[in-house]
Amino acid sequence: MDALLERLRAGLPAEALITDPDVTASYAHDMASFCDAGTPAVVVLPRSVEEVQHVMRTATALRVPVVPQGARTGLSGAANASDGCIVLSLVKMDRILEISPVDRIAVVEPGVVNATLSRAVGELGLYYPPDPSSWEMCTIGGNIGTASGGLCCVKYGVTAEYVLGLEVVLADGRLLNTGRRTAKGVAGYDLTRLFVGSEGSLGIVVKAVLALRPRPPQQLALAAEFPSAAAACDAVCRIMERGHTPSLLELMDRTTVRAVNAMASMGLPESTEALLLCAFDTPDPAADLAAVGELCKASGATEVVPADDVAESELLLQARRSALPALETVKSATMIDDVCVPRSRLGAMIEGTAAIAEKFGLTIGVCAHAGDGNTHPVVCFDHTDPDESRRARASFDEIMALGLELGGTITGEHGVGVLKKEWLARELGEVGLELQRGIKSAFDPLGLLNPGKLF
Amino acid sequence: MDALLERLRAGLPAEALITDPDVTASYAHDMASFCDAGTPAVVVLPRSVEEVQHVMRTATALRVPVVPQGARTGLSGAANASDGCIVLSLVKMDRILEISPVDRIAVVEPGVVNATLSRAVGELGLYYPPDPSSWEMCTIGGNIGTASGGLCCVKYGVTAEYVLGLEVVLADGRLLNTGRRTAKGVAGYDLTRLFVGSEGSLGIVVKAVLALRPRPPQQLALAAEFPSAAAACDAVCRIMERGHTPSLLELMDRTTVRAVNAMASMGLPESTEALLLCAFDTPDPAADLAAVGELCKASGATEVVPADDVAESELLLQARRSALPALETVKSATMIDDVCVPRSRLGAMIEGTAAIAEKFGLTIGVCAHAGDGNTHPVVCFDHTDPDESRRARASFDEIMALGLELGGTITGEHGVGVLKKEWLARELGEVGLELQRGIKSAFDPLGLLNPGKLF
Repeated sequence: MDALLERLRAGLPAEALITDPDVTASYAHDMASFCDAGTPAVVVLPRSVEEVQHVMRTATALRVPVVPQGARTGLSGAANASDGCIVLSLVKMDRILEISPVDRIAVVEPGVVNATLSRAVGELGLYYPPDPSSWEMCTIGGNIGTASGGLCCVKYGVTAEYVLGLEVVLADGRLLNTGRRTAKGVAGYDLTRLFVGSEGSLGIVVKAVLALRPRPPQQLALAAEFPSAAAACDAVCRIMERGHTPSLLELMDRTTVRAVNAMASMGLPESTEALLLCAFDTPDPAADLAAVGELCKASGATEVVPADDVAESELLLQARRSALPALETVKSATMIDDVCVPRSRLGAMIEGTAAIAEKFGLTIGVCAHAGDGNTHPVVCFDHTDPDESRRARASFDEIMALGLELGGTITGEHGVGVLKKEWLARELGEVGLELQRGIKSAFDPLGLLNPGKLF
Repeated sequence: MDALLERLRAGLPAEALITDPDVTASYAHDMASFCDAGTPAVVVLPRSVEEVQHVMRTATALRVPVVPQGARTGLSGAANASDGCIVLSLVKMDRILEISPVDRIAVVEPGVVNATLSRAVGELGLYYPPDPSSWEMCTIGGNIGTASGGLCCVKYGVTAEYVLGLEVVLADGRLLNTGRRTAKGVAGYDLTRLFVGSEGSLGIVVKAVLALRPRPPQQLALAAEFPSAAAACDAVCRIMERGHTPSLLELMDRTTVRAVNAMASMGLPESTEALLLCAFDTPDPAADLAAVGELCKASGATEVVPADDVAESELLLQARRSALPALETVKSATMIDDVCVPRSRLGAMIEGTAAIAEKFGLTIGVCAHAGDGNTHPVVCFDHTDPDESRRARASFDEIMALGLELGGTITGEHGVGVLKKEWLARELGEVGLELQRGIKSAFDPLGLLNPGKLF
């Protein structure tokens, strides 16, 4: 321990090191429930690539595990500390190094907050789409680590699609450049993409070249009420089958709608069984919304309310963004799942989730990035009640099993971390897991980077 | 050799094996110039996953190298045979297994021809964007192996962005499933993306889940003449900087324009120094073209001619698609380069290429996916003239060096294969190369898959 600190101090300014246990404890975990976290030996907050290299060289020399962290808004425990580890927080490396409207790229350090980047590029008429719910807090480095999604994905895809190149400090402190600044490039295996979603287990991202898009028109939304979740899912299928490209297509079930109303008096329709929100950022969003409104009615919508203007649309969006916080107020604790199924199976997934809730006598609210088939069942339970906690955990597992059964994945955008590592093996199978471990060994032969996560 | 054939025959029908040396010789190489090819021991044309597994088990048991092939339209020698290898041609595995308009996916075998898939999904109102010049011949498996691009990339990206999941036969014959059928998914490292562009060096793709889009409106194009390539590149920068999203943005230099006219009497303007083609598949393409036309004029275009209708647009597109074949008629041989630079450096790249042509006393025609900064300098030379051949090769290398100097990559979409493997090391650097080799070892420890390519 003393040797570790001494060696770290040799290459870092005093203010980059935190050793006070009360403070380091606050860096022990992210926002996931039910994930163990250890006690870090030290928290390091580097400000330069060289400082990160120094940390990794030290870790390798002394065989100390390293847990990289952004804003710790993750929902899978991927940023949780392990005992005696170095927590490597990248939040102080927060410079936007370059924004190029001609090349449509931004070059950033990992600690830049998602919303900060979004606003900065917006001022130049550009758009960085990935918008996880935590976008006002989460960092680009964290987004890359977990391959974050958001509301925009149905049209614009996830973080992975916006990472062109990376600068990475490897476990042994060496510097690796991957990818490119160009629109295209196929020189060798795609290491860039390998790092995206790797949860800090392959290296420390210290710089990223991100692709930008031209800023689209502001989106206009509608809300549609349905007498059943099945009817809402039928509408989702019709909308996508007819070739529409909404910029947002979200579903909230009754439990979620009521929770949002209770928390924020949003005035959403309490009696609805499922509320669908759909938005377009096309040249003529009103026309697109009108067409979608007809499809919703054909699927049995009892009411279709298009927003009159951008302000009204934003209010609807706000309601959706409040869904998770609102569900968190239903009981003392929540477990947020993140199962993604082919969108044609969305109805079956939501129905099956309701059956699981009933079987276990639990409240499970579902909000979903419906256009992507990505559901977030939120299991609400009393964590002081051991039996209810046990049932919550059991229902969580059954939801993942259902997702796999329906041809889906255990995680659409939140990642594996600690929370789902037993499930990763089930999804990947033995051969897949063996190859994933082979890759891990090639990058981190000593197993120092974020040990105990993913596998 | 006898042992190999005997063992292969035990698990394959007679018609799946070709041993006649005259015939196997015709499978020895793809369409790349200047790439050595060996003599295959046998060509195998499997029709099922099990047959591919049998081939790989046999290869592993007897330590025989395997070279996977699609339609051999590649331009880097990645599909060239090595001496004594098994050529594993996937062209008979050519079934489209599924097309789902709701899930917007197609599931295909690797031998499906790109154009066949494009037409099949088009009939259902869907769109599979990747459109390499060879799209009427090349296979999806080959497209995945080389991460192919095309004219559509400026708006729709390359093949990599449309591959969601793969079924792969590993070197030892085991079956691996990667990825997903869902719109999103982040379970573990992205092995799918690792296979895309891996040139058959990690495993044999036997099935692919591809993402589709709704079919856009037919595109409308304009042609703009410029007094210099620099002026045309300036227009490209303006168009992208102003936030336009053309579905095509192509540049042809004077040499290319003349070659196209000579071959096909296209009636393109002979006197132009650079011709820019720009198209939109937006709801109001005429309005977008009008705006782009103004930007072209502001950059010095001497003439801007918008197509009146889709048929006229198609003719312009046909001219562009004829560029490479036309340049091939200029002299007895060509070397097609594929350097991609940030689009802000496109002008410098094209000017520098002209300087290289002059320095070596060569004809080098340039056509470019200008919107992507992806140039295809085509070195035209007399292959019976040893000195000109030497100069051609030297100019080719200088073009790649220039691309790297300008912050670009040695290959935007054609891949590395044999042609550029010495250059790959320069682009990736020592650390990158070491990790790439580590991945190769994890997947193919005996080095049997497409040896001598990439590295």
